[in-house]
Amino acid sequence: MADGLPRDRFRVVYRIAGDERQALAVARDICVEQTVEFPSELLTAGRVREEIVGRIEAVEPCDASHARVTISYAAETSGFELTQLLNVVFGNYSMKPGVRVEWLDLPDALLGRFAGPRFGRAGLRSWLGAPVRALLCTALKPMGLSASELADLAYQMALGGIDVIKDDHGLANQPSAPFEERVSRCVAAVDRANRETGFRCIYAPNVAAGPDAALQRAQFAKRAGAGALLFSPGLAGFGLLAQLAADDAITLPILSHPTFLGSFVTSPDSGIAHAALFGQINRLAGADASIFPNFGGRFPFDRDACLAIAAATAAPLGGIKPSFPTPGGGMSLNRVPELLDAYGRDVILLIGGGLHQTGSTLVENCRKFRHQVV
Amino acid sequence: MADGLPRDRFRVVYRIAGDERQALAVARDICVEQTVEFPSELLTAGRVREEIVGRIEAVEPCDASHARVTISYAAETSGFELTQLLNVVFGNYSMKPGVRVEWLDLPDALLGRFAGPRFGRAGLRSWLGAPVRALLCTALKPMGLSASELADLAYQMALGGIDVIKDDHGLANQPSAPFEERVSRCVAAVDRANRETGFRCIYAPNVAAGPDAALQRAQFAKRAGAGALLFSPGLAGFGLLAQLAADDAITLPILSHPTFLGSFVTSPDSGIAHAALFGQINRLAGADASIFPNFGGRFPFDRDACLAIAAATAAPLGGIKPSFPTPGGGMSLNRVPELLDAYGRDVILLIGGGLHQTGSTLVENCRKFRHQVV
Repeated sequence: MADGLPRDRFRVVYRIAGDERQALAVARDICVEQTVEFPSELLTAGRVREEIVGRIEAVEPCDASHARVTISYAAETSGFELTQLLNVVFGNYSMKPGVRVEWLDLPDALLGRFAGPRFGRAGLRSWLGAPVRALLCTALKPMGLSASELADLAYQMALGGIDVIKDDHGLANQPSAPFEERVSRCVAAVDRANRETGFRCIYAPNVAAGPDAALQRAQFAKRAGAGALLFSPGLAGFGLLAQLAADDAITLPILSHPTFLGSFVTSPDSGIAHAALFGQINRLAGADASIFPNFGGRFPFDRDACLAIAAATAAPLGGIKPSFPTPGGGMSLNRVPELLDAYGRDVILLIGGGLHQTGSTLVENCRKFRHQVV
Repeated sequence: MADGLPRDRFRVVYRIAGDERQALAVARDICVEQTVEFPSELLTAGRVREEIVGRIEAVEPCDASHARVTISYAAETSGFELTQLLNVVFGNYSMKPGVRVEWLDLPDALLGRFAGPRFGRAGLRSWLGAPVRALLCTALKPMGLSASELADLAYQMALGGIDVIKDDHGLANQPSAPFEERVSRCVAAVDRANRETGFRCIYAPNVAAGPDAALQRAQFAKRAGAGALLFSPGLAGFGLLAQLAADDAITLPILSHPTFLGSFVTSPDSGIAHAALFGQINRLAGADASIFPNFGGRFPFDRDACLAIAAATAAPLGGIKPSFPTPGGGMSLNRVPELLDAYGRDVILLIGGGLHQTGSTLVENCRKFRHQVV
């Protein structure tokens, strides 16, 4: 954590393939490639060589074929911007296999530049009027339904006691359910259900798109009365996520979806560890909730990776608020007790298609879901 | 290519691990996961099932352990937006190993929605006054130098006959060389050299950042007289790249840098093939030049992958202009003949640190570089 870290340097923990000697050689290369990207022998002594080039802080064996190396970088190399921070952490080295980013360790001087989630766990709980229990999320789908059909589903889901009804991450601005019509109809449907139930269900339309379109959609969603936003940083950028989160004209909780980010995590020896990517980076960028595929679903995330993400959403991070872990993907009602056991109550449980089981209505399935967490 | 493709569907070629039977099962899953993401058995007959779910168009063995499967999707699933197109192509499936996107095949009805590069090969050649020869690029580095020191380097590089002097991709808005001061000084330095040489060298400052900062920096660069922009879609998004390329208040050629995109290509069985990512997607997003690590440099891109990228920058793509392949990364002067032999003259050759060899001045090394291509 940030305690004891010098104000002016941040640390990155890398897991490097090879024995300790090999890993050390790679680490020396990382120190140069990720900063000055310049032949070391041409660097004259002085500030650039002493301060700007990364510095190996610790090397320890990890297993028979990997070592864990901690490298520190001058905070100024990040320009105090999220995009450039990611660039120093893993930019060019993303192209070299055998190196995985495991953890970021940022000093308060750098953390102070990132706003993080506007709501965070406590804020979202207050927004939803649910101070203690696990929260429930589901998704409007399938793509291809009309805005009216999706709104009908939203009504039933809200009636059944879901807290957050998000667009499927594939709903953009397609002709079948244009964004503005969809948002207007779904907000109205959820409001109608809330008047009947007394619940405070919110609808989270998907605003992932190019920056102008995303900002326009987010502003429209706010005006129309949506209660949150869904955003996919893999498609539209962590920088845009940070901008949406910090925009005082929007001020809505943001759920981050993992689509198009999978290549960072599919190879165990390369990329970025689940906890750093879906936990730390999402949170730095301002996601109030981080959706990720749960273990035992249809994606190959294992239990340890999922619990590490959940831990990272609440690990100390300067003044940055904790976000909600939001496991989903191929989940079903009968797994809820197991999930509560694994994650505790500070979680948003996401069940999508699994609520559309035959043999019971959608409303009834949502009620069963709700009864499992109260 | 797009010839013969129905107006309303686009095709994606996937390379899938497994024998033909296994690959077919995965392909059926892709058809659902990338579109409706809904239990197949719950999809009633009708438009969603017939049109929206992906459709397997062809399966062929690829090698003993892989098959190549072509899947078509309704153009409307993309919402005619780049971010959502990428989502359908590979969004959730990025999280499942064993599937690699090899090629996109888009109908004119979809291609017509993407502007692509504003300049392209012909436009950039005209902008630089170099109608035939290979073009030369180098990078201002190392990070940590002051704006004045970087401008001094730019002056020498321009004097030596470089066509495009780009910021190192790690130069953002650090205190050592703040963006606006750096741009002003480097533009002035390059202009001064151009007056002495009669050349038309241009400076490409790095504008990768969150959307607002990137747009402000691009606008400042335009006003200050920069001749191009450097942008990193891995850090800041392909959607923002498309917006910068289409912005009529900016109208500068854009060089795309591969930083933070490496995880898509490091695993041969997952991710996105080099040609599709650095060739096709960069070009759809509007990059006039696509920088990628050359074979035999310090990154593990092989010769076939590099030549496939180069081919993709000029493959038929509706009315979208060809972009420039820009191989770089650990290159040196003595490899120029080999590179010209491999890529031909429709290339931008990027040598960074290699121009700072000892034994000769930077200006002299640039002149040697230039003499090799005229």
